[in-house]
Amino acid sequence: MSFLEKINSPDDLKLLSRKDLGILAQELRHRIIEVVSKNGGHLASSLGAVELTLAIHYVFDIPTDTLVWDVGHQSYAHKLLTGRNRDFDSLRQYKGISGFTKIKESPYDGFTVGHSSTSISAGLGICYAKYLNNDDSDVISVIGDGSLTAGLAYEGLNQAGDLKRKLIVILNDNDMSISANVGAISSYLSRTFSNKSLQNMRNQFGQFLKSLPKIGDDMYDWAKRWEESFKTFVTPGMLFEAFNFDYFGPIDGHNLDHLIDILTNIKNPDSPVLLHVTTKKGKGYAPAEKNPVYFHGVGSFAVDTGKSNKTASQTPSYTKVFGDQLIRLAGEDERIVAVTAAMPEGTGLTAFSKEFPERFFDVGIAEQHAVTFAAGLASKGAKPVVAIYSTFLQRAYDQILHDVCIDRHPVIFALDRGGIVGEDGPTHHGLFDYSYLRAMPNMTVMAPMDENELARMMRTAVSHDGPVAFRYPRGSGQGVALDPAAPVVDIGKAKVVREGDDLLIIAVGRPVNEAVEAAEELSKQGIEATVVNARFVKPLDSDLFLEKAQRIQKIITVEEHVLAGGFGSAVLEMFCHNGLTGLNLKMIGIKDTFVAHGPQNRLRSDHGIDAPAIVAAGQELHGKE
Amino acid sequence: MSFLEKINSPDDLKLLSRKDLGILAQELRHRIIEVVSKNGGHLASSLGAVELTLAIHYVFDIPTDTLVWDVGHQSYAHKLLTGRNRDFDSLRQYKGISGFTKIKESPYDGFTVGHSSTSISAGLGICYAKYLNNDDSDVISVIGDGSLTAGLAYEGLNQAGDLKRKLIVILNDNDMSISANVGAISSYLSRTFSNKSLQNMRNQFGQFLKSLPKIGDDMYDWAKRWEESFKTFVTPGMLFEAFNFDYFGPIDGHNLDHLIDILTNIKNPDSPVLLHVTTKKGKGYAPAEKNPVYFHGVGSFAVDTGKSNKTASQTPSYTKVFGDQLIRLAGEDERIVAVTAAMPEGTGLTAFSKEFPERFFDVGIAEQHAVTFAAGLASKGAKPVVAIYSTFLQRAYDQILHDVCIDRHPVIFALDRGGIVGEDGPTHHGLFDYSYLRAMPNMTVMAPMDENELARMMRTAVSHDGPVAFRYPRGSGQGVALDPAAPVVDIGKAKVVREGDDLLIIAVGRPVNEAVEAAEELSKQGIEATVVNARFVKPLDSDLFLEKAQRIQKIITVEEHVLAGGFGSAVLEMFCHNGLTGLNLKMIGIKDTFVAHGPQNRLRSDHGIDAPAIVAAGQELHGKE
Repeated sequence: MSFLEKINSPDDLKLLSRKDLGILAQELRHRIIEVVSKNGGHLASSLGAVELTLAIHYVFDIPTDTLVWDVGHQSYAHKLLTGRNRDFDSLRQYKGISGFTKIKESPYDGFTVGHSSTSISAGLGICYAKYLNNDDSDVISVIGDGSLTAGLAYEGLNQAGDLKRKLIVILNDNDMSISANVGAISSYLSRTFSNKSLQNMRNQFGQFLKSLPKIGDDMYDWAKRWEESFKTFVTPGMLFEAFNFDYFGPIDGHNLDHLIDILTNIKNPDSPVLLHVTTKKGKGYAPAEKNPVYFHGVGSFAVDTGKSNKTASQTPSYTKVFGDQLIRLAGEDERIVAVTAAMPEGTGLTAFSKEFPERFFDVGIAEQHAVTFAAGLASKGAKPVVAIYSTFLQRAYDQILHDVCIDRHPVIFALDRGGIVGEDGPTHHGLFDYSYLRAMPNMTVMAPMDENELARMMRTAVSHDGPVAFRYPRGSGQGVALDPAAPVVDIGKAKVVREGDDLLIIAVGRPVNEAVEAAEELSKQGIEATVVNARFVKPLDSDLFLEKAQRIQKIITVEEHVLAGGFGSAVLEMFCHNGLTGLNLKMIGIKDTFVAHGPQNRLRSDHGIDAPAIVAAGQELHGKE
Repeated sequence: MSFLEKINSPDDLKLLSRKDLGILAQELRHRIIEVVSKNGGHLASSLGAVELTLAIHYVFDIPTDTLVWDVGHQSYAHKLLTGRNRDFDSLRQYKGISGFTKIKESPYDGFTVGHSSTSISAGLGICYAKYLNNDDSDVISVIGDGSLTAGLAYEGLNQAGDLKRKLIVILNDNDMSISANVGAISSYLSRTFSNKSLQNMRNQFGQFLKSLPKIGDDMYDWAKRWEESFKTFVTPGMLFEAFNFDYFGPIDGHNLDHLIDILTNIKNPDSPVLLHVTTKKGKGYAPAEKNPVYFHGVGSFAVDTGKSNKTASQTPSYTKVFGDQLIRLAGEDERIVAVTAAMPEGTGLTAFSKEFPERFFDVGIAEQHAVTFAAGLASKGAKPVVAIYSTFLQRAYDQILHDVCIDRHPVIFALDRGGIVGEDGPTHHGLFDYSYLRAMPNMTVMAPMDENELARMMRTAVSHDGPVAFRYPRGSGQGVALDPAAPVVDIGKAKVVREGDDLLIIAVGRPVNEAVEAAEELSKQGIEATVVNARFVKPLDSDLFLEKAQRIQKIITVEEHVLAGGFGSAVLEMFCHNGLTGLNLKMIGIKDTFVAHGPQNRLRSDHGIDAPAIVAAGQELHGKE
């Protein structure tokens, strides 16, 4: 029996010797690789945090002490050590273990996470709640160096340093966020930092030392001490001490002995402490160490080679079509620039960044800044395309409304991962964008039914003189041919995909395909449906919708989005404003709930937004008088 | 003729001698005080920035060079120098000069602002657009020290330091945001900063020096130089140099000669520059210097005394009722804590902060952190009340959804300044909150029709075990009596305010009063309306609404909010989900546009959301069959 199999909780871990912990670390890595190679998941960051996780659970008493992981994708070892080893084969699978930490999954998970950079703020809140309850236990927030580029982390640090509560922040520094890290703070964290005044001063001091008469050991000792103090300046300590944190480190995050010793020392501090730990993404698995970007979030792969098990799909993903088309458009129009928030690979912009390095901006995990920066660019004639996953663009709600829409700056929002994203679950589904974007004056919102329409809508977006968003799903396209000309889609013009007199189905985005499938099935049952590809969530093609609706009074709207304030809601509002009454209308979309993790199609079926659900709604409506 | 009257653009300014500039500074102050004392406005910050504004326009060529003010409330001198002196009497008045900078108002305004901390991001975007156009002109972003507490500013600094473009950031440091500044960075900016390691090192060095034999002038000179270098560490330079900015300052922001000299020196830099300028809020007007918090945003006042011209209203404001009731509730329930983002006065929490200093948190201009911090507090049993103006809470959209709603943490959101706020205009109206909050699963959204209902809803909120928001308007209450017991309002229960068979008016929030007024007027015309105070935007009282709607098929919904995805939209969705068809429904709310600045009631009338508009809609509906 392995050590891992004997561990049901961190209490069992504390019985092991430090030497055995080293063996356990290898077992944890083996188990993580075993499961992720089958289920896919966040491999590289979880491998990098194995020793850190062991040391934290060895030294602290979780969950009496509270442990908050940032993002949570590095928490696999934590899950394995906290009673979830047996269930770990279900990682990221339907009804299985979540890929992130979740309060509802385990009392050992201090906070539910998924989006980056929340751990310091949440940890500080927990710290203060404990203080008010006279609870003296510790709170440990672990944050990656990539997450530090987000404003939220800075806001948290700023208040933590002010309140002077006993928060322990562990900076897990692997010199990357998801891909290579960006920003001044990142180069600051790297140990090659050189501050001009500091360097000048050092030189001055060196020359001064040389000018002194020999004065024996005193001088030598002092010079040595001075060098040490100097080192704390040119390392990141200076920055965190500016925030009133006591800074420790950097220490090797794979040296268990050092980790345990230093964590024991900083336990139960009087004021905020920051421990800087350096780790290697993918540590212990050669393919992941070599290619940590690929192994950040990975599908199933062969353990011995690290090669993907997926047979290369013939159908390009929406993301790939976006990346290719943007290069084409940027070749035609030199005003086009691309902005990403730490997701050049995820958003398909890697090729663009090589083709147009001067016109490509990776701002780090900083969605707010990405949008206001783009507004600035657009205000002076550039055509910025801001490519951010739907769920992460939520961070920039105010910047879209306040900095882009009020002045109608022509910023283009490419919302990848719109709709249900699958295994990443509730924190990552992009199910709110239609509602928040369409409420904003001056905004245009599109969603393509397939990858060819995506390419066309991109041309529409760059031709449009105002804020415009297009939203497309995670995963493969529909497999349709791509028209190289990709002509502009007229703003606000829908398209009738199929004609029929019994039923009117108005769908938007990928679900248009489900609507067509449903219409074929209904047709077999003698119910003939008109299917409209709405294309636009805003502005709606009210002329077409009104004309059809007046004729066919049984209507279904379909969207992969929450119903509250979504596309169907917009259609309903439009009918109301136009005085159209007496309709039988059924809205298909996500009801007022968060969607769990699992395969995309399974979740679509569970939430009643796929073709069979449309068929059922059609039958029901058709039966009505 | 004064100097000011002769200045139609900054070109005229450049003709003046430096000595004359000093006289002009006094004229500017005089003019600002003259107009703000009549119209109200942001006095203290505009007075503090007079010399800085003069120096910038004297040295740079705006608008060839681009000047971006942060927030824009300090831009009055800028407006007076850029062709707006003659119109300045209309400051903040209906169809008059805006209280903030606006691209559409003047080519001299580099960016449209209102919310804080956007200037670095926008300036950097403008910088880069110029670079791509081979335009070598300068970009100057002015930011206050208060604005630096927001994550957006940090994200901007971080990328600016990385891109190494020639952005000039001027830190206008008055040691306050709106009220006293908070956070570690703030105490860092104040010159009393003391870094532990630095102090240790300094002491060590001092002792070392004492231990040395006398070695003459060399030693003395070096020690002096060392002290100077040391000073650059204990001043903020260190921080900004960590961001790869060249740091200059701090210099006296009221010394025109120094300002002009240093701005001339840093013009057209090779890489990002930060100039640190210290100013005094309210400078040159004794009452404002003495009480900069009061004179931050002020109503009309007597110039000689600084005393408000307003006769004290008998009716307490919603804000005051909120502050008083929160103290009462917090006295009954020790789990209640209050969180504000740099707005203790504005949100009515000053008294609370004195009564419960340990349970009060001002996190600075950091709405994102405020919400995630509150989620952390709530996760461990506290009952945080997060009081943020509706428009500023937009900054925390993702934190509300991701950190609060997914886990259903009982965080209470008090949205002050909901609806039309008046003179602050489009950047400050709170017109989007219903739509973005109601789309979030697990959220409850309320709006009181008067101050007594506000007090009751507050009790409801603290009794509720889940996320809950209540939204109330800027300004005086309705003048109703306050029930000291303030009993809980049942979640999801509306209230029939008036009965009538011809028309059903469902209103929410303050407009319920307008609906009653309209119903009285309609009654005179023989149209009898039922008026329902919906109280809840989510969950709706569907039982009551359906019962009434089935009987009275002519319905008007009323809200002070955009129509897209708002309250009326929610009512419509609910009717649709319940299969209620054949209704004549008219939605009253703000159409798809931004609302300008002006008196609240005038804007309500312009946008057709007041009692006369409801009367008109009622007449129209009543005429229909």
